[in-house]
Amino acid sequence: MNRFATTPKPPYYAVIFSSQRNEPDQGYSDMADRMMALASQQAGYLGAESTRDAAGFGITVSYWASEEAIAQWKAHMDHQAAQSMGKSTWYSHYELRVAKVERAYSMV
Amino acid sequence: MNRFATTPKPPYYAVIFSSQRNEPDQGYSDMADRMMALASQQAGYLGAESTRDAAGFGITVSYWASEEAIAQWKAHMDHQAAQSMGKSTWYSHYELRVAKVERAYSMV
Repeated sequence: MNRFATTPKPPYYAVIFSSQRNEPDQGYSDMADRMMALASQQAGYLGAESTRDAAGFGITVSYWASEEAIAQWKAHMDHQAAQSMGKSTWYSHYELRVAKVERAYSMV
Repeated sequence: MNRFATTPKPPYYAVIFSSQRNEPDQGYSDMADRMMALASQQAGYLGAESTRDAAGFGITVSYWASEEAIAQWKAHMDHQAAQSMGKSTWYSHYELRVAKVERAYSMV
């Protein structure tokens, strides 16, 4: 499995989402998988990279063609339901940052 | 331990570094700790968030006040040595993206 996003030449946008999970799972894994699959179907989605350690600290970076694409994904009804569950149940804390990618390099 | 970076109001810069580690460790953990400590002493450093899962896939996002601060950290001699070891030994692949953070939100 290639876990790296294959993104176009900059500029494009990144949503950097860092989060601390609560235990136990309470449906988190299924919803997270569903949200990643759903995000990948949205207009303007360019890819995502995601990881979480055994202590429950995770970072997901999703890449988007435009601010408008990010706004539409944020407002998606199923995603809104997941966001509510995130705040009420799954996360003890999160930080979300929206950034414009200006330069990118790969290990060659 | 608070693993979230406490960053100022945007705009500021993010360096998004995603990497796949090779096994075995070969001095990686010590160097990674040293680099995080050294980065935190650099001018313009604002914080960092980092995580890696059991499969060796990691994301580190460091935050910086300016492009100039990023360039100086990239050119730091000890960091250059670590970058060489990263390419030759520690990573099977990485992607590095430099982005300008425009908006930020915390879970409240």
